[in-house]
Amino acid sequence: MTTPSGHTSAILASRVKGTNVYNPTGDKIGHVEDIVLDKESNRIMFAALGFGGFLGMGEKFHPVPWSMLSYSKDKGGYVVQASTDVLKSAPTSDLSDLTKNDGKLGDLRETSYAYYKVGRDW
Amino acid sequence: MTTPSGHTSAILASRVKGTNVYNPTGDKIGHVEDIVLDKESNRIMFAALGFGGFLGMGEKFHPVPWSMLSYSKDKGGYVVQASTDVLKSAPTSDLSDLTKNDGKLGDLRETSYAYYKVGRDW
Repeated sequence: MTTPSGHTSAILASRVKGTNVYNPTGDKIGHVEDIVLDKESNRIMFAALGFGGFLGMGEKFHPVPWSMLSYSKDKGGYVVQASTDVLKSAPTSDLSDLTKNDGKLGDLRETSYAYYKVGRDW
Repeated sequence: MTTPSGHTSAILASRVKGTNVYNPTGDKIGHVEDIVLDKESNRIMFAALGFGGFLGMGEKFHPVPWSMLSYSKDKGGYVVQASTDVLKSAPTSDLSDLTKNDGKLGDLRETSYAYYKVGRDW
């Protein structure tokens, strides 16, 4: 499957981790810390974005619906379709909470998708 | 979202890489080398399984439809719903070919899903 621009849309998960993330105006705002997959629906759920933090200690991550990221060959990274202000005010989480089965994940997913006004088809 | 057994179905991609893979009779047969994601459909396309090879040099990987893997808490790894014989005879690929945009990916995807008789919903 190729994208409208003719690039392949297939990527190795290991290549995504650590990739830079840019806002729509081209400023580097952070990186992809990890990807959250949903085993049951076979969907890519979130990119967990990191925006800095002191040596990663105590850093909170921003779960952003995967469909909001588009790869820019020019940038060599992902452009996220949201302003930096919107991203900074967005729901955050410890990385471990992103996969916990204590209600947090469900809440977080609803909250995050609602916050960014992104629809889900599952 | 939780699985029927009550476990969360959300996983971090980085945790999947390197996880052991077992056949249905419980024998360890290899590991998950990487995951191939489809950016366009937001789907998890393949697990690229490694079954050994000399220090990974020249190793071919087995793209297995992601839905064929189920996590076993007892094993601490994934059980793949195919016999070792079926897996050994399955389509293989260099890891880099799994994301190339030269027709190989499309062919490989069709071939692999057809080989394992796994339906796709996209």
